[in-house]
Amino acid sequence: MRTAFPTTSRSGLVIWFTGLSGAGKTTLARALATVLQEAGYPVEQLDGDIVREHLSKGLGFSREDRDTNIRRIGFVANLLAKHGVIVLVSAISPYRATRTEVLAAAPRKLEVFVEAPLEVLIQRDVKGLYAKALRGEIAQFTGISDPYEPPLNPDLHLRTDQMTLRACLDQLLVALERLDITVRRR
Amino acid sequence: MRTAFPTTSRSGLVIWFTGLSGAGKTTLARALATVLQEAGYPVEQLDGDIVREHLSKGLGFSREDRDTNIRRIGFVANLLAKHGVIVLVSAISPYRATRTEVLAAAPRKLEVFVEAPLEVLIQRDVKGLYAKALRGEIAQFTGISDPYEPPLNPDLHLRTDQMTLRACLDQLLVALERLDITVRRR
Repeated sequence: MRTAFPTTSRSGLVIWFTGLSGAGKTTLARALATVLQEAGYPVEQLDGDIVREHLSKGLGFSREDRDTNIRRIGFVANLLAKHGVIVLVSAISPYRATRTEVLAAAPRKLEVFVEAPLEVLIQRDVKGLYAKALRGEIAQFTGISDPYEPPLNPDLHLRTDQMTLRACLDQLLVALERLDITVRRR
Repeated sequence: MRTAFPTTSRSGLVIWFTGLSGAGKTTLARALATVLQEAGYPVEQLDGDIVREHLSKGLGFSREDRDTNIRRIGFVANLLAKHGVIVLVSAISPYRATRTEVLAAAPRKLEVFVEAPLEVLIQRDVKGLYAKALRGEIAQFTGISDPYEPPLNPDLHLRTDQMTLRACLDQLLVALERLDITVRRR
């Protein structure tokens, strides 16, 4: 029954959502994953926090440890993409060089910069992390006490303080269409 | 172009080669991977030593560190298998409970115990590791100064001191046929 294991004639794709905590990376990735799955594409979501549990327990938030974590996520994402999967990574991934290095190894990639101004993120503060970081209770918090290097030339730049989720999703789908990944718009 | 990303209607498989260093795990995995690839199956080989570099740098050889390494390999193997890939893992993976735990999460699995008597392995000693371990130059060397718990009920038990590579490969292909994975015998 060879048909049970179709060889993917085409390689997959890594969609990498980078940006500060609370900017909307995981929300966007989840929404896009649902749309792609419903259209029949093989999809895997790799959330930075969850993957950290599985692959990087014990690593901290120094530059070296963050980079190691990102390289591990990249290693797994690229393996999956090589086998035809559309992989959606949401991870702060603050260092430009590391993102570039990891995405250079992807069969195809889409780097998505998810942004809202820090004031907005501090106001949103869904998880209460910014308040803690501002009180000094969390060390090395990206955007407050640790650097974030925005992409210089992302494939997509989504301002989640200016656009609705739906509008962001539409932009993502347009970008994917250019890669011959099409879904019926709802 | 939806056809570019076929949804795998069937989940993949994790083939887990366990056994002492030098028993023939990687050799067998490599030979089987070639045959399956030629037959058109999507295949990924995860070699314990290589994966350690990517996912587990800094981990040592305590029981806890070995288990963490095996769980990480298992995490990646199961992700790939979920997307239809036949994943061939070769890793000493000395602890029975950890192998069982990891393989329980695989969509389908084949546990292959690759064995040759210690005397034979010490005689082979392709990498010179046993000589070093016996001289006490490598601590925690599985089979010499660290435990190995053989599977109690492996799906396949291959004695590489008694069978040729070809004969081992044939037994693997027979086991795979029972899982509807068939290749034309050469």
